[in-house]
Formats: sequence, structure tokens, C-alpha cells
Amino acid sequence: MSGVIPIFLAGLCFVLLRPTCCSGSRILVVPVDGSHWINMELILRELHSRGHSITVLRSAKSWYIPSTSLIYNYINVTMLEDESDMNFYNKMLQNVMECRRSPHFISTFCQQHLITSMLGNGHEILARAAATMLDDLVFMKKLQDAKFDLMLTDPALTLGVLLGSYLKLPMVFNVRWINNGEGHFTIAPSPVSYVPVSGSELHDQMDFLERTKNMLHYFYSFVEHHFVISPPYSDLLRRHFPPGTDLLSLERAADIWLVRTDFVFEFPRPTMPNVVYIGGFQCKQSSPLPVELEAFMQSSGEHGVVVMSLGTFVSSMHREAIEAIAAAFAQLPQKVVWRFVGERPSSLGNNTLLVDWLPQRDLLGHPKTRAFVAHGGTNGMYEAIYHGVPVLGLPLLFDQFDNLVRLKVRGAARVVEAKSITKEDFLEALKDILETPSYRDNIQRLSQLHRDRPMSPMDTAIFWIEYVIRNKGAAHLQSAGFNLPWYSYFCLDVAVLIMALIGVFVWGSVFVCKILCCRRSRRKMKAE
Amino acid sequence: MSGVIPIFLAGLCFVLLRPTCCSGSRILVVPVDGSHWINMELILRELHSRGHSITVLRSAKSWYIPSTSLIYNYINVTMLEDESDMNFYNKMLQNVMECRRSPHFISTFCQQHLITSMLGNGHEILARAAATMLDDLVFMKKLQDAKFDLMLTDPALTLGVLLGSYLKLPMVFNVRWINNGEGHFTIAPSPVSYVPVSGSELHDQMDFLERTKNMLHYFYSFVEHHFVISPPYSDLLRRHFPPGTDLLSLERAADIWLVRTDFVFEFPRPTMPNVVYIGGFQCKQSSPLPVELEAFMQSSGEHGVVVMSLGTFVSSMHREAIEAIAAAFAQLPQKVVWRFVGERPSSLGNNTLLVDWLPQRDLLGHPKTRAFVAHGGTNGMYEAIYHGVPVLGLPLLFDQFDNLVRLKVRGAARVVEAKSITKEDFLEALKDILETPSYRDNIQRLSQLHRDRPMSPMDTAIFWIEYVIRNKGAAHLQSAGFNLPWYSYFCLDVAVLIMALIGVFVWGSVFVCKILCCRRSRRKMKAE
Repeated sequence: MSGVIPIFLAGLCFVLLRPTCCSGSRILVVPVDGSHWINMELILRELHSRGHSITVLRSAKSWYIPSTSLIYNYINVTMLEDESDMNFYNKMLQNVMECRRSPHFISTFCQQHLITSMLGNGHEILARAAATMLDDLVFMKKLQDAKFDLMLTDPALTLGVLLGSYLKLPMVFNVRWINNGEGHFTIAPSPVSYVPVSGSELHDQMDFLERTKNMLHYFYSFVEHHFVISPPYSDLLRRHFPPGTDLLSLERAADIWLVRTDFVFEFPRPTMPNVVYIGGFQCKQSSPLPVELEAFMQSSGEHGVVVMSLGTFVSSMHREAIEAIAAAFAQLPQKVVWRFVGERPSSLGNNTLLVDWLPQRDLLGHPKTRAFVAHGGTNGMYEAIYHGVPVLGLPLLFDQFDNLVRLKVRGAARVVEAKSITKEDFLEALKDILETPSYRDNIQRLSQLHRDRPMSPMDTAIFWIEYVIRNKGAAHLQSAGFNLPWYSYFCLDVAVLIMALIGVFVWGSVFVCKILCCRRSRRKMKAE
Repeated sequence: MSGVIPIFLAGLCFVLLRPTCCSGSRILVVPVDGSHWINMELILRELHSRGHSITVLRSAKSWYIPSTSLIYNYINVTMLEDESDMNFYNKMLQNVMECRRSPHFISTFCQQHLITSMLGNGHEILARAAATMLDDLVFMKKLQDAKFDLMLTDPALTLGVLLGSYLKLPMVFNVRWINNGEGHFTIAPSPVSYVPVSGSELHDQMDFLERTKNMLHYFYSFVEHHFVISPPYSDLLRRHFPPGTDLLSLERAADIWLVRTDFVFEFPRPTMPNVVYIGGFQCKQSSPLPVELEAFMQSSGEHGVVVMSLGTFVSSMHREAIEAIAAAFAQLPQKVVWRFVGERPSSLGNNTLLVDWLPQRDLLGHPKTRAFVAHGGTNGMYEAIYHGVPVLGLPLLFDQFDNLVRLKVRGAARVVEAKSITKEDFLEALKDILETPSYRDNIQRLSQLHRDRPMSPMDTAIFWIEYVIRNKGAAHLQSAGFNLPWYSYFCLDVAVLIMALIGVFVWGSVFVCKILCCRRSRRKMKAE
């Protein structure tokens, strides 16, 4: 979700480069920037190595998606606004921290409301961008002439869905989030009695109050979808698609959903035949560390090392929190490698190494690593699971709260609140993680299960992408339920008929009984 | 489903043989006899070749499960009654033919009613057998001492479920049917608006009347489960299992469901993370035919050959139908290989070879084969798909009607009714299959999709069986929804609370409005 913003803030102008000449199929890719791109690029590398020709729709001012690449061409996207993204995140983080001061039952709705306003703006911009694109007949003709075989997109960005549907391309989603929630909610029946709604910070075993909260979150996301996210697209859909088309129907028409989830992490929930799970496909065995870092790791002796990284958001934390964390680290017998950008904390101990970038995968896979202090981003969580390192979570934004709940209820993580962090709390939680063997045992059990698969998730992803290309779609895996109006889907029309028939039967029976009783009483009266 | 009967008619006495000494894990297997066993045995062969020690619970008078086997030991089961199974099927078939003379809307309920009475008897016998087994402390002690690592069972036979649960063994189902319907209905949310209920002969795109019929079938199976199938087990469950245990909860506790389905054949429907699809795992490339049969095939020239097999039930068809079929075959330019037991039809043509057994797989995979006349048993349907041979269906019993609907709506089969078969109808349908290219094109497209998998279904099955052994279960893939009471599962308690709150809010608002209005009117009156 975190990577949706840059292109949200964009107006688009496109430069279609010449297609490279290579064997295999022609794949049009519309990725989401930021952390989502890291995942998508890994798949693109694999597809490129198999001889497919790849064209990426990218933002000209992208954070992560380079314009120079040996593995793909690109269709360029130029930003209109030049708002600093870090400012946006800083503001967002402050607002989230405000929300978290409310009682827990309310705070998740408050946070969801922040996300709604972000999504509202974003989808308005996206819909305008998509309209500009679809209205540009020359550009669309060029795309059509390119004769792509597949649209591969992350549907958190609706551009790919709209473009793929317009071009009538078979479509594969590389997905976790879609519009306003987890992809599953769009495609699979998801009873809210045991499927926690995104942002609710609940797990799959809920008491009555939690189920009520989950239901309210579900209503909220329903309203959000219908009154915030969908309306900006209505004009565009009316003009360019068959009558009755809405965003949801386009999304549900995707052939295969490569969902970046694994049920070692996600709670078990209903799914559909065209959903394929590739959670953790980015994880790999660790490589040797640079010499200096390796020496630092070895210097930790039997105590080992704590690794801390809060992704891109570390500079957004308030100063007191940073000082508290640094002071807590200073009291550990362990050494600490901390990915840190900004002014050096005054309370920093000698055991702590600050770095502005760290080879996270290689550090988490290092035998000396004892714990991972993390913000709870999905990629980091899967890496922690893959390498079996227990987590101390410091969630800041978006899905990070939900992610950490998933590790916490499995006894593989503890969570501290960034809004009110103190040295004592942080130290107590970290010592608990380091000294209680169950955290390590639990995450290593998750690691064992996560790695125990019939096929690597990357090979699975590639198989299904090529499957859709080979078979020109996968319509036979798509549910017929999506073509039904909602009242038919829920059989309300049938229920009305059956209840009416029962009503008529009961009324008829009562009527007949009354007539019979009347006759009998008349006879009685006559007899008397 | 067809193989459930023999053990239904059994009283049980057990002889536990000594376990073989071999490497690997100890697997206790409770199979269903008949066609289900053919599938199970293939898996057991594979498991045996991987060094697992297998113990099979078999009936002493089994049709298919041999007592002499190099791949497994057995626990023997002795029949009490000695009713001829063919007599049972003959009676059943006559009753089904009677049912099919009713209007189509009603006939499926009539057939379902026949199955209900069969299931009612069967489950009473099964429950008594299971009680005898669980009450036999010496026998149970022997089973416990054998320290099995896994229960592998076909849950169409509840014995395996009960035994596995009692012994607290990790459990893998090799399943298509469970109690009173398709396995999915037990484990996955299955909206009846697009998921046809077993026995309804509907497909996934239903009009209003069909959805009504499907809903009624669903109600029927609900009533059947609660009032026919479950009651015989209540005493046994009360005595041997924790309070509140019912058959459904034991079944839902299975770790992995290897479902003998593939979505090339089955309509897409919701599923769960612990459901693994192995449909068609019994299919293999064809082997060369015996010399005489090969010569017969080659003698067909460019016209090719029609293969006909109605499984075990051919002798149950009435004489007129057999004569009509033979006469129709006689008019074909094709040659015909007909698996036939009984008196030779008088109208048989020179082009038709009668055999009492045929190598079905090798015939279906032969390049001269042009069509398959079949009763619609699941194994045969998957073999037809695998080898891409169009089907003329002649359904007789059980799921055969439903199976053929699945091929028919995909344009890969036609269906003729055995109850009213005439030479003309049969010939017209068969010629249509042979002469219209779309049937062959459609089933070959299904064949292509069916074979296009990331892993063979047999390897998939073995992986997940060994996964459950390795990890001592797969609890992390089981839905938390199954632990909820039904009103919580459907959030009815939450709905009541929310409606009550809305009610109080509306009532309060009206009350406040009334007070305000009263005050205002009083003030007005005073002012006047």
C-alpha cells in the first residue's frame, strides 16, 4: 500500500519506446512503486530470463522503478506535482499517532479514516490519469498495435486494471491490496466472523466485541468502496466500457491472482481456484556480509546481534522515541545494527552500529542475529519468517499493525507502541524477545512450515503467468457468482419466493381450518 | 459413492496383523471399497515405494481390496450380511429409472430420496460397527500401541474419521464425497447461487427457477445430514469424544483434504487453504494394446473406433435399451469395442466387438478412438478428459448425472436418458458426437488445460501426505470459523446488537424530536 502514493500524485504523459526484439511473449506491466516494486521486479527478472519481452508503465519521478533497465522497456509517466513524499509520510505518521491515543476500539477506525482520505484523493487523480490515457486515441492505438499477450499488474494501482481490461488482455495480478482492503475480500466469500478486515488489527479468533468491531470495519470498507473509491471512475467507465461495468467487475475478471500471502503468516480463510499464493517469494538464502559488517557480527560473541530497520520511515519518528530506543540498546549485552538516517542519538551506546543502509536479508540469515526490530512491513515480516528471527514490532503506518498482529498471536513477535515508547518498555520487550526461547522456537517453526512447499513460490508465480499466456486466459477458473446481481448472489430473490410460498401455505391452511371449524360449530349449533 | 455399500452391510471383527518392518512412517488407511479403492491403491503404491509402512482396514468380503498385498498389511473386516451387491444396484437402478419418469424439477429430489434411504441404513450400520470397534479396548490398545503417524482415509466412510479422531492422529482425506454431498460443502463457504448442490444436476449458471431448485436441494441435504446421517452417531460420540463433538466437527478437523477434483471438470467455487486438488491423479499415458485388440482398432481405418463401458452396471440395463444400443452401433461406419456382460444382443452388428473387460485407459489414449460411450463415473470422466475423447453419456446412478452435466455444458459430451433410450435417439446423439468437430475440440481443450499443471497431481498428493507426517498435522491451515457456533459464524448475534443499537438510536431520536416539538407547540400556544 505504501507505494501507491507517488503515482497518485501524478498527471501522466507517455512516451512509448520501441519494443525490444526478443523471443517469448509480450508482457505489459503496470507496477506499484515503492516496496511493491521490489517484489514485482524480481518476477520481471525471472520472466526476462525466460525470454519474455517486458514493457513497464512507470512514473518519470519514480522512487524505485529505474528508467534504465536491461530487462524491460518502459512507458514513461511524468509527475505533475512535486510534493515531498517524506513530508506526506511525516504528516500521515503524526496523524496516526494522534489516532492511537484514542481507545483501541476507536483508534483503528480513526486510522482507517486517514487512509480513506488518502485513497479518495489518490483515486480521483488516478481516474483522471486513466481517462487522459484512454481518451488519447493515438496512444491507445500504439498500445493496441504492440499486441501484448498479457497485462501483469499490481491492482493496488487501478491504472493497470483499467488498461488491461480496455485492451482486452489476459490479466495476472501480483496482489496483496486492492482498492480498500486485502485482495481476498474482493474475490472470495470472507465471513467476517473469522476473517479480520484489513486495518481492524484483529485476528481470526474473535470474541463478541471483536466480531462487532470487525463487522463495523467491514461496513466501513463497504461504504468507502461505494462512496469514495468507485465514484471517480464512473464517468470513465461509462464512456469506455460496456454498460454496467464497475471497478469491481473489472478486477474480478483477472485470470490469476498471485497473492503475496502465505498461510503461515495470514490467517486461514476462504479462497478461490484462481488465487495462487506466492507469499515470501522474494526470500532467498543469505549471502556473506561485507567484511566489516561480518567482523562486527562476530564481535558480538555468544550474545549475538539485534538488527533494527524501520524501512523508509525512520526519520518520521519523534526524537524522544529515538533516544529511548538508543538508550535501551545501550543496556543490552548484544550488539546492534541499526538502519538509521538523521541526527545521531545522544544516548547511543558503544554496542550500536548506525548504518544508512543494511543488507537486511543477509543480516537476518546470519547465525549471530537474535532479534529483528522492525516496523512490520510485509517484505520484512516474510524475511523474518524465512530466516526464523523473532520480531520486536514498532508499527507506524498502514498494514504494519495488522502484520504484526499475525506474528504476535503466533508467539513469534512482541509489539510496542511508537506513540508512547519509553526506554523501559522497549528494553523490557526486547529482553523478553531475546531471553524467552519460545519466540525463537515459534518463528523457527513458522520458518520450517513456510519453507516446506511443493514448489518455490517464485517458480509457482512464473508457472501461472506463463499458464495464462499459453492458454490465453484462465476463464475456466473464474467464478460464475461474479456475474450475478447482489440479491441473486445472496439468493434473496429465492428466499422471498420460498417465504411467500410458505406464507401462502400457512395462510391457506389457516383459512381451510377456519372454514372447517365454522362448519363444525354450525353443525354443533344446529344439533343443539 | 458407489463403493460405500459393501462395508455398510458389514458387522466387523478385526484381526490386526503384525506390522511390517520398513523405513518411513506408519500410515493407517481406511479406504472405501469399489471404484474409490482403485484411486486409493495408486496412492498407497506410491507411498510404499517411498518406504512408508501401510496398514489398511479392509472388509473380508471386499470386492476390490485384496488381502494379499506386497504394499500393505491389513486389519480385516468380516461381513455379517451376504446380500448380493448386484441385486442392490439392480433394485436401485430400477427405482432411479422410475424417478426419472417424473418431471425434471422433481426427479432429482426423488433420486436424492433413494440415496437418503441408502445412506440412512448405511450410517446406522457404520455407527454400530464403529461403536463395536471403539468399545473393544484390547483392539484399540493394539491400534494405539502401533503408534501410527497418520490416518489416510476416504471420509465417505465415517469409520476412518472416527478412528483417526479417537486415536488423535493427524488426518489426510482422499475425498470427493462426504456424508451427504460434495466435500466442499463441508469445508468451504459455498453460495448456492452459483455452486450446484450434489444431485441437483445443475450447473454454475442458473436461472431463477434453477437457483430455487438448488436452494431446495441444499435444504434437503441439510435436513438429511441433521436428521438421517448424524443421529446414529450421537450415542457413540457422547461416549467416546469430548462433549459437543459431532460428525461434522471431526471431519472438519482433518489436516489436509486431497480432493479428487480439477477445475477443468468441476465448476469454480470457493475453497480453503487446506484443500489440495488432485483430480485425475490416476490418469497416465496409454500403453500399447494387446495384439488382437490393436489389430481390431487398426481395422477401423479412417473412421476410427467407439469405446463403450458402463462400469459394473451394464447388466442392470433393461433388454430393450441394450438392443437399441447394439442396433445403433450396427449402423455406424466406425468399429465399436463394448465392455459387455450378459446375453449377446440379437441386433449386434459385425462392427462391434464385445469384451467382458477392456483396458479403458489404453483404449481412450489410442489414436483411433473417436468417442467414449460411458455411464459418467468420475474415473472414466477424468480419463476421457486426460485423453481428449468426447463422451456420449448414459448416466444410471449416483453422481453420474452430475458428472455428465459438467462435460455437457462445456460442449464435450452429450447425454441420453437410459430410461427411454431408442435406437434413433442413441444413433443421432452418437453421430452428432462423431461428426461435429466442436465436441472433440472442446474436450481436447479441456485435456490441454487439465495436463497443464505445475506438478503432477500424484506428486502433489504425496507431497501433502508427507507434509502432514513431517509437521505432525497442518493446524495452521485450518479455519477458525469451524469453532464458532452457527449464529456467531453468520454474525447473527452481532447483527442483533447492531440492529438493537440502531433501534434505540431511532427510538431515542423520535423521542427527543417529540419532546422538542411539544415544547415548541407549548411555547407557541403560550405566545398566542
